[in-house]
Amino acid sequence: MRATVIHGAFDVRLEDRPDPKIDGPGDAVVKVVASCICGSDLWPYRGENPVKQPRPIGHEFVGIVEEIGSEVRTVKPGDFVVAPFVVSDGTCPHCQAGFQTACQNRVGYGSDKADGGQGEYVKLPYADGTLVATPEVPDDSLVPSLLALSDVMGTGWHAARSARVKAGDTVVVVGDGAVGLCGVLAASRMGAERVVALSRHEPRQKLAKEFGATDILSERGDAARDAVLELTKGVGADAVLECVGTKQSMTTAFDVARAGATVGFVGVPHGVEVPIGTMFGRNVGLNGGAAPCRAYLPDLMADVLAGEIDPGKVFDAQIPLAEVADGYTAMHERRAIKVLLRP
Amino acid sequence: MRATVIHGAFDVRLEDRPDPKIDGPGDAVVKVVASCICGSDLWPYRGENPVKQPRPIGHEFVGIVEEIGSEVRTVKPGDFVVAPFVVSDGTCPHCQAGFQTACQNRVGYGSDKADGGQGEYVKLPYADGTLVATPEVPDDSLVPSLLALSDVMGTGWHAARSARVKAGDTVVVVGDGAVGLCGVLAASRMGAERVVALSRHEPRQKLAKEFGATDILSERGDAARDAVLELTKGVGADAVLECVGTKQSMTTAFDVARAGATVGFVGVPHGVEVPIGTMFGRNVGLNGGAAPCRAYLPDLMADVLAGEIDPGKVFDAQIPLAEVADGYTAMHERRAIKVLLRP
Repeated sequence: MRATVIHGAFDVRLEDRPDPKIDGPGDAVVKVVASCICGSDLWPYRGENPVKQPRPIGHEFVGIVEEIGSEVRTVKPGDFVVAPFVVSDGTCPHCQAGFQTACQNRVGYGSDKADGGQGEYVKLPYADGTLVATPEVPDDSLVPSLLALSDVMGTGWHAARSARVKAGDTVVVVGDGAVGLCGVLAASRMGAERVVALSRHEPRQKLAKEFGATDILSERGDAARDAVLELTKGVGADAVLECVGTKQSMTTAFDVARAGATVGFVGVPHGVEVPIGTMFGRNVGLNGGAAPCRAYLPDLMADVLAGEIDPGKVFDAQIPLAEVADGYTAMHERRAIKVLLRP
Repeated sequence: MRATVIHGAFDVRLEDRPDPKIDGPGDAVVKVVASCICGSDLWPYRGENPVKQPRPIGHEFVGIVEEIGSEVRTVKPGDFVVAPFVVSDGTCPHCQAGFQTACQNRVGYGSDKADGGQGEYVKLPYADGTLVATPEVPDDSLVPSLLALSDVMGTGWHAARSARVKAGDTVVVVGDGAVGLCGVLAASRMGAERVVALSRHEPRQKLAKEFGATDILSERGDAARDAVLELTKGVGADAVLECVGTKQSMTTAFDVARAGATVGFVGVPHGVEVPIGTMFGRNVGLNGGAAPCRAYLPDLMADVLAGEIDPGKVFDAQIPLAEVADGYTAMHERRAIKVLLRP
């Protein structure tokens, strides 16, 4: 099969790899229908996380189950499945508590136990604990929104849930990438009365509005803080979604939070300093992390199939898998919000 | 009147101060029945927070209302009142949301607007937003438990509430000072099934058990982490109360938290580094800060008057106000958990 391998900074290649096969009783092999490139894939792509040796990449995909191990019970060949971005056993105490990203037997894609997602096929263990099947094979038009449940929509949902968004809230979303935009959608679905998106890119502003943003602020840093305080009569936001992971984005998130608010964070932290004094003085909480998309998948899948949400709109480019390298370039240069790959 | 003034490290003195009088329509003057020394008073006492100039000290007291301003409506002369450790207006958005410690017009005791608590009388503004009266003047035996509602019991309660303790939880309490002990009591009241207190001091261990601790661990640091993990079959605690505020206590708190848990923190942070990577990877939240004791006072007062809780047990020494300097020494040397002062 063909699969994407990252060799180093700015060097991803589609290569021939061994066809995957069932090794264990809990395994599944999935024929990929669509996969995509994640903002977090750009960290190694940009050289900010070093690539020690070439490895398969990609952790978001949907597809058709091709083959299963002898003990797999919840999916069968022919099923259309969504794969969350982490493989989890589904049975350990952390999985049972709904935090599958902390699974005691967690497996990452592109490792010796599971193929990378940006390829033609993916073999993975713990199929029952990981994959979620649709009731029937969905119309192709729904593929982008189902694919978004692999990561970005579940992650945006986790940001809003971690920030404890509730009906009537004023919510600020820091970050206008695919996750931030899904955070806008999530906050809106949770009944937030006002959803303020920080964005200075016109196409992203437009999508934020489609997803339910009531206000768009193009300011950054101190100016963004001042603008939010002006919007909220000096009080600040009831909940803040931090969807970037940089020092500046975290600072802004705390700056705009009102006393007693929670910052829900889902951006992988890079150089972040937590302002513990502000947290103490104003009782602003910090909560979040690697999103347990598996926990949210059943409900969000039902919402997508019912036409209630359409997170697939974050994909503003669809290209053949053969052009995966161009997809990375487009996302790196911010010409695309998120790139969908078709094998 | 006589009141306690801190002059510098290890130098507190009982001095003559002007008798307080009503200045504004929202003021009250309270004749102090009992006050006490706080763990946070030890920071300036030990010279860890510099004392720039002599100032009245103390922020926990109960007493009888002596006089009120023309617009005070909720307390009247002769009422027995509990004063939370911060003066709050009761009307700003933060007070209305139950975060009175972030009041937009917050006033500290021992400032030019309110007297220190360790004295014979205290004048304060915003009496309606701050003081809570008992239905009738209580029996003297209840004074310690009512005084505990000024700070330590409300703060312990806030730690448990910030950590989102729920029925059936396994809760670890880091810190065996008066606040930590009250945190044990709070977690127990909230229905925690297992309350693990970290303590190596026999009298504190005993009180922790009286307050509902099911397990006492005398280990510290990595050994404490290992002991908690052994108790919880490698999973960790559902909720952790961080009631100290040092780097080591915060590290231990995160080390023993299970994935998806929340660390509720109420110790004023000194040199604390927040392990953002752990928070992200295991979805461990951090939530808390200066406790809005005012918000909890009505319910906790009802519990004390009904004999449901007796947080006053944290006072293991009662001395005349004249001996306040000895009280500081006793607490500094950890000979006393918490010292009650009678004017």
